[in-house]
Amino acid sequence: MKPFLLVIAVTGSIAASDGLWAQPSFSATNTSFGRFGPPPIISPEVHADRTVTFRVRAPKAGEVRVSGEFGDKVMTNDGTGLWSVTVGPLEPDLYGYGFSVDGFRTLDPANSSVKPMRSPTTSMLDVPDDQPLMHDFRADVAHGTVRLHTYPSRALGKLRRLQVYTPPDYDRKSRTRYPVLYLLHGSGDNEATWTALGRAHWIADNLIARHLAKPLIIVMTDGHAAFANPPPGSGDERTRNRQAFQRDLIEDVMPFVEASYRTRTDRESRAIIGLSMGGGQSLSVGLKHLDRFAWVGGMSSGVRDPEQMFAGVLGDAQATNQKLKLLWIACGQDDFLLKPNRQFDELLTARGIRHEFRLSEGGHSWPVWRRYLAEFLPRLFTK
Amino acid sequence: MKPFLLVIAVTGSIAASDGLWAQPSFSATNTSFGRFGPPPIISPEVHADRTVTFRVRAPKAGEVRVSGEFGDKVMTNDGTGLWSVTVGPLEPDLYGYGFSVDGFRTLDPANSSVKPMRSPTTSMLDVPDDQPLMHDFRADVAHGTVRLHTYPSRALGKLRRLQVYTPPDYDRKSRTRYPVLYLLHGSGDNEATWTALGRAHWIADNLIARHLAKPLIIVMTDGHAAFANPPPGSGDERTRNRQAFQRDLIEDVMPFVEASYRTRTDRESRAIIGLSMGGGQSLSVGLKHLDRFAWVGGMSSGVRDPEQMFAGVLGDAQATNQKLKLLWIACGQDDFLLKPNRQFDELLTARGIRHEFRLSEGGHSWPVWRRYLAEFLPRLFTK
Repeated sequence: MKPFLLVIAVTGSIAASDGLWAQPSFSATNTSFGRFGPPPIISPEVHADRTVTFRVRAPKAGEVRVSGEFGDKVMTNDGTGLWSVTVGPLEPDLYGYGFSVDGFRTLDPANSSVKPMRSPTTSMLDVPDDQPLMHDFRADVAHGTVRLHTYPSRALGKLRRLQVYTPPDYDRKSRTRYPVLYLLHGSGDNEATWTALGRAHWIADNLIARHLAKPLIIVMTDGHAAFANPPPGSGDERTRNRQAFQRDLIEDVMPFVEASYRTRTDRESRAIIGLSMGGGQSLSVGLKHLDRFAWVGGMSSGVRDPEQMFAGVLGDAQATNQKLKLLWIACGQDDFLLKPNRQFDELLTARGIRHEFRLSEGGHSWPVWRRYLAEFLPRLFTK
Repeated sequence: MKPFLLVIAVTGSIAASDGLWAQPSFSATNTSFGRFGPPPIISPEVHADRTVTFRVRAPKAGEVRVSGEFGDKVMTNDGTGLWSVTVGPLEPDLYGYGFSVDGFRTLDPANSSVKPMRSPTTSMLDVPDDQPLMHDFRADVAHGTVRLHTYPSRALGKLRRLQVYTPPDYDRKSRTRYPVLYLLHGSGDNEATWTALGRAHWIADNLIARHLAKPLIIVMTDGHAAFANPPPGSGDERTRNRQAFQRDLIEDVMPFVEASYRTRTDRESRAIIGLSMGGGQSLSVGLKHLDRFAWVGGMSSGVRDPEQMFAGVLGDAQATNQKLKLLWIACGQDDFLLKPNRQFDELLTARGIRHEFRLSEGGHSWPVWRRYLAEFLPRLFTK
C-alpha cells in the first residue's frame, strides 16, 4: 500500500506551467522562459518527517502568508519573489489551506487539488501516514463509484447538481436494492466537497470491505438552494435557504435518486446527516420527516431555536422515540458551535428524546467531520 | 428551456463568502464585516446584451488585468480596491479566463466554476445563447451519467484517475454493450476538463437524443502519465510521457474499463481522439494500434516527426487504409500548431493514407475543441 499512498500526496502537489497562458510549444527554440515564464515550483512539498513546505511566486508582494487547519504562518521571500515556509510536522490527515498575497486570498496555484467550494480559495494538502488511513484509497479493497448528475429542480426552477456514491458490486448485483444516506455539506462547500475533501466514497469503501458498514448508496446534494451565494449573517435568508433546500430534497432529489438507482424506499432504509449549515439542514429535514427518515444526524450543526423548530418532535417523545432508530449529535470541544449543540443535547434529554451526544476532540474542520462519518456509517441500517 | 440556460451562467458566477476563513456564524452580533470580511462580490456578471463584467477585490494591488479566450483587459480600481472591467458582447460560448494581480496569476475567487487543470489559475465563464447550444444541458433530453474512478496503474506504479460517460439508458438496458471513445485532454488539463469545460457528456447527450450520434461510452483519462508536471520544452520528456501514457492506457485503463463496463471490444467499436498534447497521444496510440482502434482523430494536435513516428503506418498504405474506418485531423486556421498539422496532412496525402483534414476557423481553444467533438461523434461507429 505504501507506494500508492505516497503518490497521492505527490500527485496533488507538483506545480504546473501557467495553464491558460501556457500552451504546448513544439519549436526547439521556445523551450523555457519565453512562452512559459519561470520554471514550475513544487507546492506543497510533503517531506518524510511530515513537515510541509509551501511555495508561491509573487514578485511584487510585500507580505505573503499561508493559513489552514494547521494554523497561520508568514512566508519568506528568497529575494527573487519566491515565497516559502515550512510547517509541521503535521498529523497524517487531509487539510485545507490558502495563501494571502498582500491580503489577497488565493488558493495555491501550484497545487491541482482544489477544494470544491463557492469561493475557490482553498487548496488541499494530503499528509499520508505510514499505514493507510480510513479515508485513503486502498488498492486491496473493492471500490464503489461516484456518479455526477445535473438535474432540473422543479421546486427551485433551476439546474442543480448532485453526486451519488454506489457501493462496490452495485453494477454486478443487478437485483439488490440498497439503503440510502443523504450527506450534506457546509456553508463554504458544494456537492463535490464530501468526496474531494471528505473522501466519503473511500471511507465507505474501507468500512464496507471490513464489514463495518452495510453497503449503501450515498447522495451528496448542493446545500445552497435559495441563493448561489447566501449573504452571511441574515437569519431570514438562512431560513429561506433551508426551506428551499428541503423542498428540493423532498420534491426533486429523492424522486430522482429513487427513479435512477436501486434504492430501498422504506424509512428504516433512509438516513440523513450533514455538517455545519448542512447539520442544521439534516436535523431540520430529518426530524420533521420521520415518516421518511429513521436515522438522523448532525455534525457541528448550525442549530438555532430548536425549541421552536422542533416543537412537534419534542412535544411527543414517545412517538418520536418509536420512529427514530438513531439521533446522533456530534460536536468538537473546540468548535465555535459547541454551545448551541450542547444546549440542543440538553433540550433533547430534558424532553426525553433518545439520542446520542458525541463530544469529540477538535473544532470546526474537515479532519473532524471525516472521522464523524467513519463513526456514523457503522451505526446505520443495523437494526 | 431558457430559464435553465440562464441559471447555468448565474450559478457559476455569483461570489461566495470567504471559504476557508469564513465559517457560518450563528450569533446575532456577528453578522457581516467582522468574521466575514467585506460583502461578497459578483464575478463574472453576464448581462442581457452578452457583455460581461469581471470583478475582483485587491486593495493593495497596483495593476489588475483579466485575460482569457476573449482577449486581455486592464481593470479599473473604484478607489476602494474593488477592480472591475466589462468586456464584450461575447459570442455565446464557454470561456476560460483568469486575473493577473500585480503579475500574480489567479483564478476568479468569486467564481465557483474552476477549470480542472494542473495549475488551477483559470475560471470558467458561460455566456448562454437564446437557444440552447450543443454543449448545454437540456431538460427535454435524456441524460447519461459521468462516473469517477481512481485506479492503481500497474504500468506506472501509482494511483490515477479517470472519468467515464455512460449514455442514457445504460443502467436500464442491462444487456446492451456499447462502443467506446477514448477522449484525451491537453497539456494544461486533467481527466476532468473534458466534462467541466468541454461538456463532452452534454454534447453526447444532445447528439444521441437527435439520433445524430450512436449511444457510446466515453473514457476520459489523465494524460500526465510520466510526470505530474512535465517540464515543458523537452522533447525527451514529452516522449517519455507519451510512452508512459500509452502503457497505462493499454495495460491498465482499457482492461479496467472493459471489466467495469459493458463495452464492445472489437476494433471497429473503439475510437480515440485528443486535443493538443492529447492529439499527439491519440494519433500515436491509435495509429500504432490499428489492431485495437479503427477510428482515430487528432484536434490541434502536437504532431512531431510524423515520418519517423508513423513509419510503419505510412509504409503500407493499403494495409493502413484497410484497417482505418476514419482518420480525422482537425486544426484551426489561427492555431499556432497549424503548420505541423498541415504538414502531417500533406504527408498522409503523399503516402496515400485515406484521411480527412478539417481546417476550421479559430485557434487553440476550448470553444473550437467542443465543436470538433460535436463534429466527430456523429462520424463514429457508423459503418
